[in-house]
Amino acid sequence: MDVHDLIKSLKEPDGGKIVMLVSDGIGGLPITPGGPTELEAANTPNLDALAKVGVQGLSLPIKPGITPGSGPGHLGLFGYDPLKFIIGRGALEAAGIGFQMQENDVAIRCNFCTTDADGNITDRRAGRIPSDESAKVVETLKVIKIPGVEIFVEPVKEHRFVVVFRGDGLGDGVADTDPQRTGVPVLDPVAHDEAGKKTVEIAKEFHAQAVKILANQPKANNHTMRGFAKKPHMPSYEELYGLKAACIAVYPMYKGLASFAGMTLVGEATTLQEQMDILRQAWNDYDFFFIHFKYTDSRGEDGNFDEKVKMIEELDKVIPQISALKPDCFIVTGDHSTPAKMASHSFHPVPTLIVSDLARPDMLEQYGEKWAICGGLGQFEAQYLMPLAMAHANRLGKFGA
Amino acid sequence: MDVHDLIKSLKEPDGGKIVMLVSDGIGGLPITPGGPTELEAANTPNLDALAKVGVQGLSLPIKPGITPGSGPGHLGLFGYDPLKFIIGRGALEAAGIGFQMQENDVAIRCNFCTTDADGNITDRRAGRIPSDESAKVVETLKVIKIPGVEIFVEPVKEHRFVVVFRGDGLGDGVADTDPQRTGVPVLDPVAHDEAGKKTVEIAKEFHAQAVKILANQPKANNHTMRGFAKKPHMPSYEELYGLKAACIAVYPMYKGLASFAGMTLVGEATTLQEQMDILRQAWNDYDFFFIHFKYTDSRGEDGNFDEKVKMIEELDKVIPQISALKPDCFIVTGDHSTPAKMASHSFHPVPTLIVSDLARPDMLEQYGEKWAICGGLGQFEAQYLMPLAMAHANRLGKFGA
Repeated sequence: MDVHDLIKSLKEPDGGKIVMLVSDGIGGLPITPGGPTELEAANTPNLDALAKVGVQGLSLPIKPGITPGSGPGHLGLFGYDPLKFIIGRGALEAAGIGFQMQENDVAIRCNFCTTDADGNITDRRAGRIPSDESAKVVETLKVIKIPGVEIFVEPVKEHRFVVVFRGDGLGDGVADTDPQRTGVPVLDPVAHDEAGKKTVEIAKEFHAQAVKILANQPKANNHTMRGFAKKPHMPSYEELYGLKAACIAVYPMYKGLASFAGMTLVGEATTLQEQMDILRQAWNDYDFFFIHFKYTDSRGEDGNFDEKVKMIEELDKVIPQISALKPDCFIVTGDHSTPAKMASHSFHPVPTLIVSDLARPDMLEQYGEKWAICGGLGQFEAQYLMPLAMAHANRLGKFGA
Repeated sequence: MDVHDLIKSLKEPDGGKIVMLVSDGIGGLPITPGGPTELEAANTPNLDALAKVGVQGLSLPIKPGITPGSGPGHLGLFGYDPLKFIIGRGALEAAGIGFQMQENDVAIRCNFCTTDADGNITDRRAGRIPSDESAKVVETLKVIKIPGVEIFVEPVKEHRFVVVFRGDGLGDGVADTDPQRTGVPVLDPVAHDEAGKKTVEIAKEFHAQAVKILANQPKANNHTMRGFAKKPHMPSYEELYGLKAACIAVYPMYKGLASFAGMTLVGEATTLQEQMDILRQAWNDYDFFFIHFKYTDSRGEDGNFDEKVKMIEELDKVIPQISALKPDCFIVTGDHSTPAKMASHSFHPVPTLIVSDLARPDMLEQYGEKWAICGGLGQFEAQYLMPLAMAHANRLGKFGA
């Protein structure tokens, strides 16, 4: 019996409300020897007050030593084994621009490139064509029509765009058409399996029409296709946990990831305060709330220690608005660490705090990395955070008699 | 290679004696904010003396957030993955009344019910007929004979009883006959697989004879059958660990669970002091002793914090009698937590103490939840306690050269 089967069999129809506040990349490192991490340096009276009554621990996003991207990082937090539930590159890219994939969609991450008169690639990224120019070129591809499939073409950043084919019988077992080098032509798409064959025909036709349209584009006269991917097969929050789940996020990527888990995207917040307002308005309609705060990661990625500290302090200020709603289980965590010192995601475990009437206190007085080491939750894989959330919200029955 | 294969390949023929003292439901929660748990509140000079020389940790009965019943809770402590070794309802019920199942037995949990003139169920629990009345009705069913099988019929509590069929070729792949609602007849048993077919025939015949016998019973004129189950297939302690294992328990459930692991049930203790006397008498005859203390769980289930504290203090008083025998590895643990605050089993990890000449000290001074967080054993799944026990008793060889 795996953990999902177990949880499904134990979930109770009623129980408390759960808030999971994800401060992206919140974990960090000292930048001076013996100094504090960003979180330890931040003045966080509200989070520290929660630490006094809750229980802390360190969440390992994947396995020790493994640094996750946003996709696997969030899948773990959402209770999916990130080594089992893999989101294909195309689907992640679609999620990243907020495209809501359906069951019969195949999404493809495309790159504009340039080819010479013989059709050989001269630049695999079309000189990293600026986003505003690229978007206009993407617009010209929207005229492509292929009988039997609906086609979506959406810009991403610079030379990147997403194509989605919607139609019955389309598989995603198709190899990339990017040869990964210059001086050779764009590859033909090749099917790995039977289900991929129909997709290959559509992809060839799309590419053929696209090349005609792009013929006179000076900066991007061709394109490659990578990461053909259907929507991941994931049991929904409703199915797994019996939870009506809401996602209150600002950035499309996190909305996309939440939608893969069957969460409802609530509101159109553009600021943390708007997220709080939406939370309050939606409070009676959902059992579970995923709230995503991006800027701790952004400033960490910038390598800006002081600005990341400020972002943590911004987050701390809204904590009382969440506490005021009296969630039965209030979790503060991150999908991974983003130490300003590294200016990138990292493998370090993430300080995680659970506040609940059922939390067993651990005598900690502050929320942060060095305290979390001595927390009552110990170190645990992120995929177990949801079982812990369900337990602390009194939503799981007993296993066996 | 799984852990059982590993342990089997490493076990040494000789080594030290192991005592596993299981204080059922010993883990708890504070009932006042900032207050102690039951174990932290108890005056336990003897356990604290052990904490000073031993090593502590927190045992997760199943996985984070999962609350176990007694069955999976003990299987974990005994070293069996509780998500792999599942005890069927009938077998657990048989264990619960101390019925010693054999390899060719199928046990069934039965409920008396009432049916109307048309044979439709009017009450699925026969008005929760009192245990003493129910036992008399069960007695009338003992006359049932079916050629080729031996039949056992034993009362449980109120409307519940256990039926065991003993005979060759009986499988347990049989669906419940309880329709889970009233106004419809008791279902016919249906086989899930080939091996279940013979059992179905026996079950039909049993039910037909029972209905005739019960025809004039005013309170219970019919019965349902649930949880058809053979004895779980578990490698024995002898096979797994090379241990001659003794169970010294008062309650039938724990004797039954120990017998599934191939432990010998020693003595007929009715009190903790009698358990100590039996331990002393049996000391030279066994390598491993499972001692079960029920009342910490009972008082927790009652929601009585102060009485649970007293039970822990009772347990503390006998500790010197065990220490006097100088076990090479002395473990104090629980199968799960039963916080008086929740008046039920819970998911919280269980403070666990190992005293051994080979224990690496962790500088803790007391035995209890908040200290165990910082213990040298960390947090570990209960199924790893037996490998730890074997190691601390110097009973495991080296893996690989």
